[in-house]
Amino acid sequence: MLRTALCDKLGIELPIIQAPMAGGPSTPELVAAVSAAGALGSFGFAYTQPEKMQHDAELVRTRTAGPFNLNLFASKTPGEIDAASQKPALDAVAPYFEALGLPRPQPVRGPYAPDLRAQLDMIEEIRPAVFTFHLGDVGGERIAAMRAAGIRVGGSATCVAEAKRLETLGVDFIIAQGTEAGGHRGTYLRDPYEAMTGTLALVRLIVRAVRVPVVAAGGIMDGAGIAATLALGAEAAQLGTAFVTCPESGASAVHKAAILAAQDDDTLITEKFSGKPARGLANRYMREMRDAPTLAFPAQNTLTGPLRAAAAKAGNADFPSLWAGQAAPLARELPAAELVARLRDETLEALQRVSKLHG
Amino acid sequence: MLRTALCDKLGIELPIIQAPMAGGPSTPELVAAVSAAGALGSFGFAYTQPEKMQHDAELVRTRTAGPFNLNLFASKTPGEIDAASQKPALDAVAPYFEALGLPRPQPVRGPYAPDLRAQLDMIEEIRPAVFTFHLGDVGGERIAAMRAAGIRVGGSATCVAEAKRLETLGVDFIIAQGTEAGGHRGTYLRDPYEAMTGTLALVRLIVRAVRVPVVAAGGIMDGAGIAATLALGAEAAQLGTAFVTCPESGASAVHKAAILAAQDDDTLITEKFSGKPARGLANRYMREMRDAPTLAFPAQNTLTGPLRAAAAKAGNADFPSLWAGQAAPLARELPAAELVARLRDETLEALQRVSKLHG
Repeated sequence: MLRTALCDKLGIELPIIQAPMAGGPSTPELVAAVSAAGALGSFGFAYTQPEKMQHDAELVRTRTAGPFNLNLFASKTPGEIDAASQKPALDAVAPYFEALGLPRPQPVRGPYAPDLRAQLDMIEEIRPAVFTFHLGDVGGERIAAMRAAGIRVGGSATCVAEAKRLETLGVDFIIAQGTEAGGHRGTYLRDPYEAMTGTLALVRLIVRAVRVPVVAAGGIMDGAGIAATLALGAEAAQLGTAFVTCPESGASAVHKAAILAAQDDDTLITEKFSGKPARGLANRYMREMRDAPTLAFPAQNTLTGPLRAAAAKAGNADFPSLWAGQAAPLARELPAAELVARLRDETLEALQRVSKLHG
Repeated sequence: MLRTALCDKLGIELPIIQAPMAGGPSTPELVAAVSAAGALGSFGFAYTQPEKMQHDAELVRTRTAGPFNLNLFASKTPGEIDAASQKPALDAVAPYFEALGLPRPQPVRGPYAPDLRAQLDMIEEIRPAVFTFHLGDVGGERIAAMRAAGIRVGGSATCVAEAKRLETLGVDFIIAQGTEAGGHRGTYLRDPYEAMTGTLALVRLIVRAVRVPVVAAGGIMDGAGIAATLALGAEAAQLGTAFVTCPESGASAVHKAAILAAQDDDTLITEKFSGKPARGLANRYMREMRDAPTLAFPAQNTLTGPLRAAAAKAGNADFPSLWAGQAAPLARELPAAELVARLRDETLEALQRVSKLHG
């Protein structure tokens, strides 16, 4: 029931993946609850040091024997950015720091991200059922090594060109990330602002362009959405925003509340929080910073960290990154296991509804 | 087989609407062929005078008794734009006119569009099975009058707010136009650049927000796409780009060739051709004009008309508007009736494929 060939490959009961969400939402509690419910839980480990990766993965294993997914960003990290050249970006955010009573922002020091090679080595050590990467690729050799170790490997594509490259590199599956998706755009072979293809179009384009299984991501919030992506030929759907509002999610209260209050698609793409384009609910920071200078990714993320954290703590929605996809108004507040069960039932219901049309 | 409640309402056999495409593609031949094949053919009459509307509609009626759809733009047309203030927009396009051997562009004189009231009166006279409007609304009174005359009325929405307004105005159905869609964005209650919701998300949001039937538009090119929108709860799918390349379509050869050559989503949104944002295959004009001044819609369309026409005639893809949706790479070159039959078969196939998943 609902099992696709990719489900068997990944060892899951349902064609549902909880999207990796770096920087808060993807807690061990969330990942464990999703995986125990028959879907695939995922950690977003982009900003996470290897020791913490290991710690969190072990926590999940104490709770469930279900498979889970670890995700990394494969983007290049800039070297040390000299203090003087950081001034315009610091000046741009300084008034917000002041407004929140924070000390004036200082130049940020590298390394701006954990060492990718060390993170990848740790993935091989943890040996999760699934590893996915975003915002680039980790190279064919690493993919081959992981697959040889029994890890299923997937990569993100936002256009046909990226999907074809991933196929050449030997991935087990490709995540087609449509423009609806919340959080960071995975684009790495094109101008990200010119790779904003909607999920419906992108999934179909990629399904037709490659032979490996495709996972649909972007704007999927319920079973009707999952059923639609299966009709497009995807073998699973990846949902992020739908899980942000689960009690097990580590997203801030202000983030959860903003998603639950959404009535229309009020998201925009901004690179002002992290240095790379990402989709979230529009707020004052995003609008006012539209043309402001930023540091390269992920140095900007380090710079804005205290601002985002202080605002979230104060229940102030003007400054945190409120990552969300375009279908955020369909969010609900359910424990992860219950959400997975509902998604399954709704998907079956949608499939039964349309199956009547071919009487 | 494949009939939805909306099919019965519109008098069509299949939940497939050939999108109205103003300015060329929607010829009487195309509309008649689509309608005779059991789908709904549509004229894009935005720029068409009432007499010509009547003439074209009559031509269809000589060919088929099938229902068809007439579409208008409901946007406000500016009054006469004084010649001096047109100078920056004229200067911006002048080098292209020169490059194509055209006389230097002169200030364009109003009226810039046919009189909307006269067009609407003509719709009531023609009394087609279906009337749809785009880029605004025609008012509740007019909608009521048309419905009283037996015309089914639909309006375009690019966000939940527009869909709710259309429902209040009493339309029979709502076309949810996702960001994937080629041609003019229908947005009229928001900044169109902030109403770029993908079809998958938008259709589901609107289906959940209103009680009237929803038609999905944007990025749908084959039966898998149609099946997906039915799974989302849409009662029909509207396809434009898929029909541009039919031999019956009046699109220029250069336009058809560009769509058939597409390998990835190489579309962008521009308001530089007409004065309103519309999606088409990126070309030299779109890229170079990105920050150029334009006249208000549709005066800019009048201004660029000679340039677009001359380039198309010369087989030059640098300057015509190459309207296309994001899934253009899935286009094929088939007679309209054959395309409709294929779409039907593929939709059934996709529904059968997914129905196996709920075994």
